[in-house]
Amino acid sequence: MSMSFKELMKVLGLGAVAFVLGVEWLNWLKRRLRDSHGPLKEVLFFPSPQVCVEHLFIHHKHFPCACPLPHGVETSFSRLLVHLLSARMSLDLCVFSFSHMELSRAILLLHKRGVVVRVVTDRDYMTITGSQIGALRKAGICVRHEMSSAVHMHHKFALVDGRKLITGSLNWTLTAVQSNKENVMVTEEPELVGPYQKEFQKLWEANDPANHKPQCTNGQLNIKTCKDR
Amino acid sequence: MSMSFKELMKVLGLGAVAFVLGVEWLNWLKRRLRDSHGPLKEVLFFPSPQVCVEHLFIHHKHFPCACPLPHGVETSFSRLLVHLLSARMSLDLCVFSFSHMELSRAILLLHKRGVVVRVVTDRDYMTITGSQIGALRKAGICVRHEMSSAVHMHHKFALVDGRKLITGSLNWTLTAVQSNKENVMVTEEPELVGPYQKEFQKLWEANDPANHKPQCTNGQLNIKTCKDR
Repeated sequence: MSMSFKELMKVLGLGAVAFVLGVEWLNWLKRRLRDSHGPLKEVLFFPSPQVCVEHLFIHHKHFPCACPLPHGVETSFSRLLVHLLSARMSLDLCVFSFSHMELSRAILLLHKRGVVVRVVTDRDYMTITGSQIGALRKAGICVRHEMSSAVHMHHKFALVDGRKLITGSLNWTLTAVQSNKENVMVTEEPELVGPYQKEFQKLWEANDPANHKPQCTNGQLNIKTCKDR
Repeated sequence: MSMSFKELMKVLGLGAVAFVLGVEWLNWLKRRLRDSHGPLKEVLFFPSPQVCVEHLFIHHKHFPCACPLPHGVETSFSRLLVHLLSARMSLDLCVFSFSHMELSRAILLLHKRGVVVRVVTDRDYMTITGSQIGALRKAGICVRHEMSSAVHMHHKFALVDGRKLITGSLNWTLTAVQSNKENVMVTEEPELVGPYQKEFQKLWEANDPANHKPQCTNGQLNIKTCKDR
């Protein structure tokens, strides 16, 4: 049973058309499924077990990490890091207490990659032992703090590229991550992201040192602008 | 120009059909608009200005409240109260610090209305000055606390009727409501409500006093079950 060249071309042509249509249909189905699912919504609970997260910082290592912690395990903390490190353009962070070394490493890495990082923090808690705020400022990251000493800046939220919101009860401390019962929600729902982005901008502007009365110390103006860090 | 009885009935009949169809179409349009908007998503920021919230507790007052606070003003705090008081069946509350008198009043009112209230709180913070946990227990509300003394139950979330989630950075204290920079998110998004409901149940069961070793004090068993409050 042989097939003429014409017939072969016909079968091949029909096959190609069927293939293209199939791929298109699969893409359409994928889009529909994603749309019906809506924007990203992820909930993380803590405490998070201690695992190695080295691979999230250094992608192309020749040798795998030799630390004694479990490897290749996904935890709430590793998910939090993944979301933070997904920033390509900007990271706006509002955090009450920030002393977690690995979260600090992540923020410093983003800054090094050219991501515009802005931090608003609490006036009292930024100077406690172990606070990473000094290290961020030293690296050139713009940090502002609540100006009023009577008020706590108690938020714990981050905005990744202005479109992903990370918010919850979790302060950026080792106790919070490894011991406490805490929650973090990650969402790209515009109705939720929008208000937080607006609130960040409000706090950022309200705590601009340039808008506050300079304090005179020993005859020197003690005003710090964003450029001074 | 007169109309026969038959013609009049025809016109009236057609009118009635058109009216019913119109109402149906409006309902369909309303449903479509609501569905396209998705489930409830509301974001509240604090501090919240002090206003009178008496009308939220007592609906059918003959005389309006005479307190000196502003009346008829909606604030973040009044919205939070509205959402809490919307509970008809159950309220599951996970809160680190609870000393706010009006939030306590709301919880007691729900309990009095027959709403099943369950509270999980922090072991250390439930006994601080001004804590409302004692008042809740006294009223017969079932309260459990984090069993481990080395760990903080740092959540601040509530689940209304198992379908509305209220979560954020806000502890249930006067300072948090009236002074601090805080956020609260209210949502009926099932993908977000579900994990929190599961977490509540997990914490509720994990902190059941019946599952923990009784502590012997002066020869007496110091075990407290849910029924003992």
